[in-house]
Amino acid sequence: MASMQALVFKGPGQIELREKPIPEVGPTDALIRITTTTICGTDVHILKGEYPVKPGLTIGHEPVGVIEKLGSVVTGYRVGQRVIAGAICPSFHSYACQDGRPSQDGQAHGHGYKPMGGWRFGNTIDGTQAEYVLVPDAQANLSPIPDGLTDEQVLMCPDIMSTGFAGAEQANIKIGDAVAVFAQGPIGLCATAGARLCGAGMIIVVDGLDERLAIAQKMGADAVVNFRKVDVVAEILRLTGGRGVDASIEALGTQATFEAALRVLKPGGTLSSLGVYSSDLRIPLDAFAAGLGDHRIVTSLCPGGKERMRRLMQVIETNRLDLGPMVTHRFPLSRIVEAYDLFSNQRDGVLKVAITP
Amino acid sequence: MASMQALVFKGPGQIELREKPIPEVGPTDALIRITTTTICGTDVHILKGEYPVKPGLTIGHEPVGVIEKLGSVVTGYRVGQRVIAGAICPSFHSYACQDGRPSQDGQAHGHGYKPMGGWRFGNTIDGTQAEYVLVPDAQANLSPIPDGLTDEQVLMCPDIMSTGFAGAEQANIKIGDAVAVFAQGPIGLCATAGARLCGAGMIIVVDGLDERLAIAQKMGADAVVNFRKVDVVAEILRLTGGRGVDASIEALGTQATFEAALRVLKPGGTLSSLGVYSSDLRIPLDAFAAGLGDHRIVTSLCPGGKERMRRLMQVIETNRLDLGPMVTHRFPLSRIVEAYDLFSNQRDGVLKVAITP
Amino acid sequence: MASMQALVFKGPGQIELREKPIPEVGPTDALIRITTTTICGTDVHILKGEYPVKPGLTIGHEPVGVIEKLGSVVTGYRVGQRVIAGAICPSFHSYACQDGRPSQDGQAHGHGYKPMGGWRFGNTIDGTQAEYVLVPDAQANLSPIPDGLTDEQVLMCPDIMSTGFAGAEQANIKIGDAVAVFAQGPIGLCATAGARLCGAGMIIVVDGLDERLAIAQKMGADAVVNFRKVDVVAEILRLTGGRGVDASIEALGTQATFEAALRVLKPGGTLSSLGVYSSDLRIPLDAFAAGLGDHRIVTSLCPGGKERMRRLMQVIETNRLDLGPMVTHRFPLSRIVEAYDLFSNQRDGVLKVAITP
Amino acid sequence: MASMQALVFKGPGQIELREKPIPEVGPTDALIRITTTTICGTDVHILKGEYPVKPGLTIGHEPVGVIEKLGSVVTGYRVGQRVIAGAICPSFHSYACQDGRPSQDGQAHGHGYKPMGGWRFGNTIDGTQAEYVLVPDAQANLSPIPDGLTDEQVLMCPDIMSTGFAGAEQANIKIGDAVAVFAQGPIGLCATAGARLCGAGMIIVVDGLDERLAIAQKMGADAVVNFRKVDVVAEILRLTGGRGVDASIEALGTQATFEAALRVLKPGGTLSSLGVYSSDLRIPLDAFAAGLGDHRIVTSLCPGGKERMRRLMQVIETNRLDLGPMVTHRFPLSRIVEAYDLFSNQRDGVLKVAITP
Repeated sequence: MASMQALVFKGPGQIELREKPIPEVGPTDALIRITTTTICGTDVHILKGEYPVKPGLTIGHEPVGVIEKLGSVVTGYRVGQRVIAGAICPSFHSYACQDGRPSQDGQAHGHGYKPMGGWRFGNTIDGTQAEYVLVPDAQANLSPIPDGLTDEQVLMCPDIMSTGFAGAEQANIKIGDAVAVFAQGPIGLCATAGARLCGAGMIIVVDGLDERLAIAQKMGADAVVNFRKVDVVAEILRLTGGRGVDASIEALGTQATFEAALRVLKPGGTLSSLGVYSSDLRIPLDAFAAGLGDHRIVTSLCPGGKERMRRLMQVIETNRLDLGPMVTHRFPLSRIVEAYDLFSNQRDGVLKVAITP
Repeated sequence: MASMQALVFKGPGQIELREKPIPEVGPTDALIRITTTTICGTDVHILKGEYPVKPGLTIGHEPVGVIEKLGSVVTGYRVGQRVIAGAICPSFHSYACQDGRPSQDGQAHGHGYKPMGGWRFGNTIDGTQAEYVLVPDAQANLSPIPDGLTDEQVLMCPDIMSTGFAGAEQANIKIGDAVAVFAQGPIGLCATAGARLCGAGMIIVVDGLDERLAIAQKMGADAVVNFRKVDVVAEILRLTGGRGVDASIEALGTQATFEAALRVLKPGGTLSSLGVYSSDLRIPLDAFAAGLGDHRIVTSLCPGGKERMRRLMQVIETNRLDLGPMVTHRFPLSRIVEAYDLFSNQRDGVLKVAITP
Repeated sequence: MASMQALVFKGPGQIELREKPIPEVGPTDALIRITTTTICGTDVHILKGEYPVKPGLTIGHEPVGVIEKLGSVVTGYRVGQRVIAGAICPSFHSYACQDGRPSQDGQAHGHGYKPMGGWRFGNTIDGTQAEYVLVPDAQANLSPIPDGLTDEQVLMCPDIMSTGFAGAEQANIKIGDAVAVFAQGPIGLCATAGARLCGAGMIIVVDGLDERLAIAQKMGADAVVNFRKVDVVAEILRLTGGRGVDASIEALGTQATFEAALRVLKPGGTLSSLGVYSSDLRIPLDAFAAGLGDHRIVTSLCPGGKERMRRLMQVIETNRLDLGPMVTHRFPLSRIVEAYDLFSNQRDGVLKVAITP
Repeated sequence: MASMQALVFKGPGQIELREKPIPEVGPTDALIRITTTTICGTDVHILKGEYPVKPGLTIGHEPVGVIEKLGSVVTGYRVGQRVIAGAICPSFHSYACQDGRPSQDGQAHGHGYKPMGGWRFGNTIDGTQAEYVLVPDAQANLSPIPDGLTDEQVLMCPDIMSTGFAGAEQANIKIGDAVAVFAQGPIGLCATAGARLCGAGMIIVVDGLDERLAIAQKMGADAVVNFRKVDVVAEILRLTGGRGVDASIEALGTQATFEAALRVLKPGGTLSSLGVYSSDLRIPLDAFAAGLGDHRIVTSLCPGGKERMRRLMQVIETNRLDLGPMVTHRFPLSRIVEAYDLFSNQRDGVLKVAITP
């Protein structure tokens, strides 16, 4: 049996690049040779042991690659074709998928409910930080890369672009709406770009780093707020003439950002939450207007599937946005542990790292 | 100047029936002679001083009556016509109204934002527990009562039927969905009836009083859960075969009901909250699935306006439901203080009291 | 190779019950032994040659049966389990399915676009009027029948209940809305029942047979209009006090019903069309309000999948409606040609026939 | 009584600038001194007698101006303030308005239903091609112009920007969708800009004039199709790789554009129609897929109200688009008859004319 290099989670604080067998391909699977992948903030949560992943699993969930082998019932693709697949990699045949909730595929109360939804790559099955990855339900998940797009141009599609955009799409934005986006890390930046694509008329972004706020302006922000320098709630109310925003998007996962996102909302607005929280949340009585403010709070996971990937690559192809500049560093797979060290410590202005063979 | 009897809020714990001048009618107003009104749980909050109403205000917000006088620019109505008007009584010309949020009419962050939305009768203007009430923006709010319907049959339309139904309408119910309704007081009962009208395929209701659970079954509940006898979350998961419910409706306003409503939701379900909370709310990390459960939390106020009142009276007219049995007691206005005593202490199995001249 | 009896389309006007091999089961298939099936109006169109089905195909698309054999990758089911499957039987992994259009699965302009959407059983693959049927993409399509429900109780789920309900669901019905349903054949009756479940406050049905109008009243109609006796448009405007209806549902497929459905709509209403048309349609300038009436015209196919079947069976289980009385006649498979003769000539008050082994 | 100049419709083919009294201001009205207005294609239909306007009426429906006088109950505005108001000028208090259909305000079947909806300025009341216009329901309709925006920058908001954007908003566009816009006159160009703001990933525009196609590219079109040079349907199917478009927007009002818009749709797509038709429409059986293509056809009128005007001006203020270049010619009111001649004959590459005092 042939083998490959794969980055394995060994336990809290421990990852290791090691040899693993190249997976067998079942009737509905596909084997992809990874040409580019990346490291996500969630991978850092896994590394820290904050997230329940089994030791021995290959991690990583953002695949760009080439079809190496196709299962017997997978049709309409060819070996050698360049493809991506969404991070969640839903089956699309489950009750949850048919109910419009592919990111909750396989989830059920009392039947093994997991706090991170139905996400599979690098969570419940082997992931993408390896030479090869096995894609289950390949017919539903392989999405061909349009000619002319490079690996790095589509590298954000499988997760952060899909997730950040979902934050904007779930926020119920109408043309001309005011939107505030809290935190401008990679997902927050994608949410900013997504809000712009959804027609927001005024986009206000919040972060503590001026360099991230500068990038946010390139992604479509109209106004920037550095929370280290001003009172965020007061400033956003000032910028909106006292109206508050129509929607706020939370992209960090802390009580402070959640609460500020709630306090700047117009009565009847939508708080779209993308952050991964690590403690209970408190909804202050006054911010929630005694439960009678007519607000909506929505949380979104990364939607997947080949149709969504196709649409995301379409807007890159027609130059609606360029996420290429988010790739600040590049490493070969052999040096991925070094890349984790840089990324998890947020050194050298790193946003995203590209990992290649 | 002619005078009338009106129930006035004097301060925490104090209400008084007293003489007040019959209001003057401006160009866009109408004067209604009240033929039936009722007392709401919110009025009891006001009486207890838990809600910021100015002393001297006439309270009550559920008018059934007859047009006594019409403002100079109000057209299409006639003196003597039987009408109702929604409790919120929105202008329908404000930015919030045009934005689809009539219950937030007049509200703006930093500009006098009030925790109870734009609700006017018995909150920011004189209310309906009187011989007459002045209806502002009458053209938008007067809704003629269909011939053949009695006052008591339409008495719930202005507030609790509209509010309870909104709880169901905002819950995003599809035909065949499982819905849990927490608390079966008047608004919870209306939410149960509303969930039935929206096509729910299994309605599970929760309360601590068996007599209320029995009424809930008449309103459309398929299964009842007495929280004093069983573990609510476990029982609802059992009743749904482990799936959880597609939507849960909270109609009380406590941490316990809010949290249970969250814990019985399917991953990606909707929690529709109607209760008036009196303290901060806590979202447990595990119930909210680390912020990644794809859930939606929505809060609704009572939607108003003559079009909504028309539609609510339509379903009563065609016998889709009968809220008449909710009127358990009747008092003349002269004995309204006695009615408050009965209602606020929940004696004699009281659900709603009808107040007539 | 074992064989079975199957009803085969031979050419316009010709059907025949003949021996066919029992199908082989591939990795993602399931073989179902049919315990009850029925004949649809569409089957009569096929028989008449009005619909492009290849000679030699087994027809029928409404399966109720028992799992005989499962493909190697199909999990969570067991042989002997009672199941149904939707008529369309979508893959759920295609672009169209992931885009929320399962009934257009496999359809693409210029790539073999078919006028009847992605419907498979008895259209592009062998159907259910046989002893066995092969279900492709079984994981997405097999829906277990709840204990306690008979075959006849769930017989309408695979097609006409799903289709008729879709007509109502797509009509954008709000609680209390007025809805007109044109034609009360089996699908129209289901649309009437669906409109009732969606909260319609006044349901007006139109047909030319008083006996069908009488059944419609049992399905939830508030008012009936026999087009042979009155002017349909005038009568519906009268019944709605001149408002017109909020939504109209067309369930026949003729210019007359389509046009009347348009003429009774309120300005800005929705016409939901279920009928299969056999000629060009004309939208009269005055009815469509010069293209500026703010109307919506939507057409719906039968949505499928195990999640939808589950929800439809849920409302039968909780007694929201009873479609059992629609089965007016019963035949064994050996006499199915006789059943076609009865059904296609609409003799003896036939609504639906049950075909059993 | 003071008088003013106003352009009056005298009968088919006849308009005249004449003296009229400056209108009296009622309690809910406002008098606006027009600083800029324009001529719409619909005005040309009126001039030709194709549209039922009473002789003697002042026409024009696109007001930019300054508040001259406010009615007694209109609050929150000041004399001298710069404002616009939407062309339709709905009351916002009617049943239709409360039902979310402000452009159908005042409309009812059998009660004076008009083919052009509830549009008031220059249709049922005196319009804006005058020195002054009376705005009814001023509280709902006056929308202050943000400082820094010129009259010409907001001149398209009252009608064509609102209408064209509605065409895109009703088309149900998701991020990355392919959209075709038929006809690139002023409204079609706005629909193109609106589709871009809604997140369309590929916008294909169709017209017969290369200069209009060139302007369309500035408004956001990705591909242009000159119907005089190529087969429109074949070309759009080619550009979308055989998929067809997710939505098509019709902005002319002819059988040819309507039918092509239908033929390029993906199965299950949306045709959003903005054009004013002058004859019956035909839906070909094959294009409509036998009534079973799962398509949606929606028609939209110009939505109005101060909230919508506010949002449209917001996207101009934050430079999301610039409709200024659409003003190709300028005339004083005294020469408006000359402007009609230029505009109605489409000479000199005219797109829109600005009319000033």
